[in-house]
Amino acid sequence: MHLSNPDPDLAITLRRRRHQLANLINFPALLWSGQACPRNFPANALPFRASSHFLYFAGLPLVNAAVYLDSGRLTLFMDNAPPEDALWHGPSPPREAIAHQMGADAAYSLVALPEKIQDAATIPVQDVHTRSQQSQLLGRTWPAAHTLTGIDWQLAQAIVSLRLIHDPGAIAQLQRAADVTVKAHRAGIAATRTATTEADIRAAMEAVLMAHHCPCAYASIVTTAGEVLHNCVYHHPLQGGNLLLADVGGETELGWAADVTRTWPVSGQFSPTQRDIYEVVLAAHDACINQIAPGVEYRNIHGLAAQVLTEGLISLGILRGNPADLLAREAHALFFPHGVGHLVGLDVHDMEDLGDLAGYAPGRVRSDRFGLCFLRLDRPLQSGMLVTIEPGFYQVEALLQDPDRRSQYADCVNWDRLSQFADVRGIRIEDDVLVTEQGGQVLTTGLPTGVAAIQDCLS
Amino acid sequence: MHLSNPDPDLAITLRRRRHQLANLINFPALLWSGQACPRNFPANALPFRASSHFLYFAGLPLVNAAVYLDSGRLTLFMDNAPPEDALWHGPSPPREAIAHQMGADAAYSLVALPEKIQDAATIPVQDVHTRSQQSQLLGRTWPAAHTLTGIDWQLAQAIVSLRLIHDPGAIAQLQRAADVTVKAHRAGIAATRTATTEADIRAAMEAVLMAHHCPCAYASIVTTAGEVLHNCVYHHPLQGGNLLLADVGGETELGWAADVTRTWPVSGQFSPTQRDIYEVVLAAHDACINQIAPGVEYRNIHGLAAQVLTEGLISLGILRGNPADLLAREAHALFFPHGVGHLVGLDVHDMEDLGDLAGYAPGRVRSDRFGLCFLRLDRPLQSGMLVTIEPGFYQVEALLQDPDRRSQYADCVNWDRLSQFADVRGIRIEDDVLVTEQGGQVLTTGLPTGVAAIQDCLS
Repeated sequence: MHLSNPDPDLAITLRRRRHQLANLINFPALLWSGQACPRNFPANALPFRASSHFLYFAGLPLVNAAVYLDSGRLTLFMDNAPPEDALWHGPSPPREAIAHQMGADAAYSLVALPEKIQDAATIPVQDVHTRSQQSQLLGRTWPAAHTLTGIDWQLAQAIVSLRLIHDPGAIAQLQRAADVTVKAHRAGIAATRTATTEADIRAAMEAVLMAHHCPCAYASIVTTAGEVLHNCVYHHPLQGGNLLLADVGGETELGWAADVTRTWPVSGQFSPTQRDIYEVVLAAHDACINQIAPGVEYRNIHGLAAQVLTEGLISLGILRGNPADLLAREAHALFFPHGVGHLVGLDVHDMEDLGDLAGYAPGRVRSDRFGLCFLRLDRPLQSGMLVTIEPGFYQVEALLQDPDRRSQYADCVNWDRLSQFADVRGIRIEDDVLVTEQGGQVLTTGLPTGVAAIQDCLS
Repeated sequence: MHLSNPDPDLAITLRRRRHQLANLINFPALLWSGQACPRNFPANALPFRASSHFLYFAGLPLVNAAVYLDSGRLTLFMDNAPPEDALWHGPSPPREAIAHQMGADAAYSLVALPEKIQDAATIPVQDVHTRSQQSQLLGRTWPAAHTLTGIDWQLAQAIVSLRLIHDPGAIAQLQRAADVTVKAHRAGIAATRTATTEADIRAAMEAVLMAHHCPCAYASIVTTAGEVLHNCVYHHPLQGGNLLLADVGGETELGWAADVTRTWPVSGQFSPTQRDIYEVVLAAHDACINQIAPGVEYRNIHGLAAQVLTEGLISLGILRGNPADLLAREAHALFFPHGVGHLVGLDVHDMEDLGDLAGYAPGRVRSDRFGLCFLRLDRPLQSGMLVTIEPGFYQVEALLQDPDRRSQYADCVNWDRLSQFADVRGIRIEDDVLVTEQGGQVLTTGLPTGVAAIQDCLS
């Protein structure tokens, strides 16, 4: 494994996790890392990402490996690289050396897998090729990773309970991802003066991630059309009056993610209308972070964001009426149609491969209400969880021009007043916050949020 | 489709290709674009790349679309984005608008696919999910795209015969990919003075590709360990005496690739030994490009590279003996173990999803000989083909320290003399050359190859 930042305590961390798992399940587990998907032909593969469940217990981003976890013991299954591989990919450490790095108790080639294991629980990986090997070996199929049953479902629950609460090894990795991501955002802000398109800013930001050996944890959003929530086009020219929304995050070589958004004015100065709305979003962001503590329901943090946004939009004359009534009618969701955040860990939406198993406490299910259907997290917070706080304001044509919604909210919105804010397409401010006994600890520090501080960085 | 550089003649180009196909086959063809593969959870996808065969006839990188080609007519099958998609991904052009862009004759949603088509030939795409849909609809399976039979094999042959010879629309795209790639290399050279690791240079190069809306056509190689042919680690610190080998190429938004390698000294100055070997490789590079013309066997271009390298290494005292004998014994392959190049087009190794169907003329098969087994192209050149010319010199420990090879070549190599060239780990010089009636036309111009010119760029 060619790691630029090896963690000397990795084997200790991993062994502790394995023992914790053994305390939760009384059957073995078999986790695969997966394989790279071909891009346009087999020898030209897309960047490989190991399965997060594998990474949590095996640590290293190995291609085509499996680990068998039984009573705290780890057996590694992987093949040594064939000799001709040295010509194309350089010398590889032998299986035994890799096993040592992860503190494995035994290591074999893949051919030994069927004979060395008992029937085991598993979680299907994302790549279909490896998933069919899982199926073949274990004699069952899975329609999707979030439809597990029997011991697979019990394993998923056990893993969720561990991965929800980050241990010191995880927090160190998450802090590193946060630090590099903050550097990338600073580079994006710095590049604004000379950039001519969104793509120039994206390039400046991803160059920092790359130079720190951090792949993008997700497809970067770097856009003047911030109202498109997952915008992945970068061709718009930058123009003086634009706001630029950048939602960019890296992950460490071991797979731990960061997720950060900033919104700044291309010209270096917010217009008065941009500034007004920005400060409403920032008030929601700050209020939510201040409320984070163990025992607090994350749903209520979302509610707080909605409340602060509603009050702010009333004070700007965009919404009209009583805050409680407007909240009950979900008028805020016209402008803030997503949830206030989600779990972060080895996945940027942590464990979302398991559907809502991690995000929603047992017995809770997603609401189908306009303002709540995209809330990805509904649990009481616990010390050691990492969550994003990412309120926003967006003018989405598909929502605001929808005749049904316009009539439903006819009395809530001052449309004339709203039209004065046409230069605010989308604003989001997002940080990653660790829940601690002392309250919320922002990992993504060092990046300004205030209007004056952002304008300083741009000047 | 959000294209930053739409081609106004796209529909005309595509229609011509479809009519050419109709002249070659008397049965319909059905080509799929494929879908994005999930990274660590379904909503977090790897960058999507449409199938190259689809792109050749349909032009646009559509996700989850199929085209039915029958007697020169194109019917497009794709679903309009659902309304809620506008919130996450912005407004999408409707199917009819996309159909118009590609000059389609008709367009339907995917559900109409089974009823609107006859049994058709196809080529399986790379993503397994879509491939299973292909299987289901057409009632057959394919072990791999290079093991086709029946009408599928006839279709593949017809497509190969078209895609081998680039039309003006293709050449314009390939020239654009080459131009952007050259800019990326210039940025990499310029970044050398301030870079501290390989990753810094890679970041500077890929930032240029990104800013020009060109994804990487393949995983970049940017390394001080140039002897590892497909090295994809970037963590080594740059040190004064290193050579840096950068094999980086972009592809246009419509999928057309470039593939360029340069090797330069980190310090700005080649050492005398580095310079000696570099000039041998450059002599091979130049000699091969000069030989390119219609009718020339590419295998002989490879042979010419081997010959120039052999003579050069003899003159440096590294190889000893008679050039013809050394070539017959493949002593050059100790230092030049790969082929001199390959086809380039919509794929960086064009049509390699079809195995050697495109690279090898009918009736020819790969050699298992040491010096030829990695030759990816063995055809007489034709006007309109684009090939790489990429001779190299490498000191691969796995080859040079192999006891069998050392004894086999004991009398061919002056090992003491070779040890004086320890600061030359890997050198490759690669350009993309279009075969024209007037000879080889280098598309990747504007990037120095000579020692003095490279040193100038670095100073």
